[in-house]
Amino acid sequence: MTRSAAEALLAGNRTTLAAYEAKHFGWSVDAGVATITLNRPERKNPLTFESYAELRDLFRQLAYATDVKVVVMHGAGDNFCSGGDVHDIIAPLIDLPMPELLLFTRMTGDLVKAMRHCPQPIIAAVDGVCAGAGAILAMASDMRLGTARSKLAFLFTRVGLAGCDMGACSILPRIIGQGRAAELLYTGRSASGEEGYAWGFYNRLCAPEALLDEASKLAADLAAGPTFAHGVTKKMLHQEWSMSIDEAIESEAQAQAICMTTRDFERAYRAFAAKSRPVFEGD
Amino acid sequence: MTRSAAEALLAGNRTTLAAYEAKHFGWSVDAGVATITLNRPERKNPLTFESYAELRDLFRQLAYATDVKVVVMHGAGDNFCSGGDVHDIIAPLIDLPMPELLLFTRMTGDLVKAMRHCPQPIIAAVDGVCAGAGAILAMASDMRLGTARSKLAFLFTRVGLAGCDMGACSILPRIIGQGRAAELLYTGRSASGEEGYAWGFYNRLCAPEALLDEASKLAADLAAGPTFAHGVTKKMLHQEWSMSIDEAIESEAQAQAICMTTRDFERAYRAFAAKSRPVFEGD
Amino acid sequence: MTRSAAEALLAGNRTTLAAYEAKHFGWSVDAGVATITLNRPERKNPLTFESYAELRDLFRQLAYATDVKVVVMHGAGDNFCSGGDVHDIIAPLIDLPMPELLLFTRMTGDLVKAMRHCPQPIIAAVDGVCAGAGAILAMASDMRLGTARSKLAFLFTRVGLAGCDMGACSILPRIIGQGRAAELLYTGRSASGEEGYAWGFYNRLCAPEALLDEASKLAADLAAGPTFAHGVTKKMLHQEWSMSIDEAIESEAQAQAICMTTRDFERAYRAFAAKSRPVFEGD
Repeated sequence: MTRSAAEALLAGNRTTLAAYEAKHFGWSVDAGVATITLNRPERKNPLTFESYAELRDLFRQLAYATDVKVVVMHGAGDNFCSGGDVHDIIAPLIDLPMPELLLFTRMTGDLVKAMRHCPQPIIAAVDGVCAGAGAILAMASDMRLGTARSKLAFLFTRVGLAGCDMGACSILPRIIGQGRAAELLYTGRSASGEEGYAWGFYNRLCAPEALLDEASKLAADLAAGPTFAHGVTKKMLHQEWSMSIDEAIESEAQAQAICMTTRDFERAYRAFAAKSRPVFEGD
Repeated sequence: MTRSAAEALLAGNRTTLAAYEAKHFGWSVDAGVATITLNRPERKNPLTFESYAELRDLFRQLAYATDVKVVVMHGAGDNFCSGGDVHDIIAPLIDLPMPELLLFTRMTGDLVKAMRHCPQPIIAAVDGVCAGAGAILAMASDMRLGTARSKLAFLFTRVGLAGCDMGACSILPRIIGQGRAAELLYTGRSASGEEGYAWGFYNRLCAPEALLDEASKLAADLAAGPTFAHGVTKKMLHQEWSMSIDEAIESEAQAQAICMTTRDFERAYRAFAAKSRPVFEGD
Repeated sequence: MTRSAAEALLAGNRTTLAAYEAKHFGWSVDAGVATITLNRPERKNPLTFESYAELRDLFRQLAYATDVKVVVMHGAGDNFCSGGDVHDIIAPLIDLPMPELLLFTRMTGDLVKAMRHCPQPIIAAVDGVCAGAGAILAMASDMRLGTARSKLAFLFTRVGLAGCDMGACSILPRIIGQGRAAELLYTGRSASGEEGYAWGFYNRLCAPEALLDEASKLAADLAAGPTFAHGVTKKMLHQEWSMSIDEAIESEAQAQAICMTTRDFERAYRAFAAKSRPVFEGD
């Protein structure tokens, strides 16, 4: 195969998503920043079978998208997301045979996997209710901006289920500590914005009216950075989760050596030498 | 084997512990909440070979107990536990041959394993001195309520030993962070109640006179919840400790699908539909 | 082989480092406490190929040193370390072939491995700028004292690289939590001393003029402790990084049983029985 044939093949593996028309949530792309809006505000933006599946498929496609560098996820109105809809999701699950139940829990888990496997950093902008599967979406993001009035609750116990949903028993303790995670998962109680910030769940608290702007600004800053390298950072944060320190160091030696071959690395050096600001292009 | 024969066999594997008469600590069971009282207050409730062994055996039995849903552990008087008794434990360890030493360190480690493997959430109510193996008992619990005057100290270094005792180098860093854990384990210094709360060791600080009541109230709330699901939450928090994120998500998909077959899940939905409060029964 | 021949052979494997003459940083040893001074204050103490290599070799030798029990690392002037020198390090890396790049990233990773594998606890005293590879040196230490004016920044993204450098994606999240670590690694922003303390990166904040004294005092306290046991604590904190809880508990049972055969364990007991203060000797 010639080099140009190989390049054509790989190019065929890439896609753009600016023109994607989302069916079950809002979607827009502006200068490399995609914004997902959970938009059934009259019911605090619950998830349904359809929105789960579409989110999963979209995050899987993001792995191949060339025009999206960062993703912002937020909710319409004053709430982030109330989780799985009781009527649309929980009702049909009662009495399903085990293979169907597993099909459902794997679908929701696949959404979190897709969020962690796409190279774009994900920023959740969390106001108001952030509950159940909504709390999971925030947890599965890379960074989280909150508001003082936000209410974070891993509600599964309230519907008779366990706290182990979509990776919560693995991911949440690494964000806020094992003891605090245990309390939220066993009791289902709400954590306030102040608590979430003190515990490191939120990177920052914003005024509700400024929340989306601040998240979009942070996203734009990242999109203007070395986005190939950001994708490597995200991959390694994922990849090293259960490695030993020595394994992690060797993995990072390889991953960073890859980044040292990029033009963004050279651009940064040239800009520094010229006392100017680097313009990164993500390659 | 018939179904009823199988059920009889499994029933024979179950036990009740309300009538258990503890020899080396206090034990009572009330409405599904067991309370363990370390009760040698004149010496700040130290552990002995005998109390270690009895605690280990009791926590192992709890895996089969049908009448205990949550465990509260606290100390008589104004202290939680001063750790291994110097006269009763440390003195005899000097000059023991290696196989005997290992028998001892494995026995204490087996206590922590049993605490982590029983399905009941464990709540430590910590006032006053919480030192050495006492600090380990608090650390090995699922949640911890403290008091401002509580003093947490991993004293092993003070008796010439390493900080790696009963899982401390693995568990403590995941609760309070690697840097703070390193300091406590290397120096043996006391952490105040305020520090322990800020670091996520304590879930809450209580007034000393309200401590046991608040722990018992939290335990009663959990005991009134979906206790089969609580046991699954606990198992998965344990099980996912060193899994990758992808492995954890698949494990949770299976574990949560199991919980979706329980009657408690259906009870919660029926109550929601009837706008009433669910009454969970733990099956 | 006779016992004395074996002892001679092992003794030949040991070394002393008090007289070591460092070429690329300051080095002194006083009563078991070694102090490393990054000392190019006019450029905020950057690292060079030479200082990386010498630090790596020195920390490797520390594994065999009998006269160093604790290491303090700090920077001359008002800064800790500004990281890899742009002219001395980044410039030559542009255009290097992959095998050479990997040689470099493995060398820097080997420094962190050597810091984690030597038995001496390492205390970083951090004032002013603590950036890039300098932030890594602080992160790879066992404990960190900071100042309110210290500025911690994982700058790699600013030079077009990924946050995964020298173990950062594995180690930093375990110190300050996954969400805060993600923000620092993706954005390269500075964290203040107050933030670093609230997050558990710093164990304590000190006045700048007292910083080195406080670090040296903490080091002297550790050096006067059971230093063999400290080395075991450090090894187990490393070793248990990606173990399950059950594996960690068995590993600690073995490691602590080893410590129970030391004379320091007996010394502590004898001192306790005599109501005196133990004098540890590290064996």
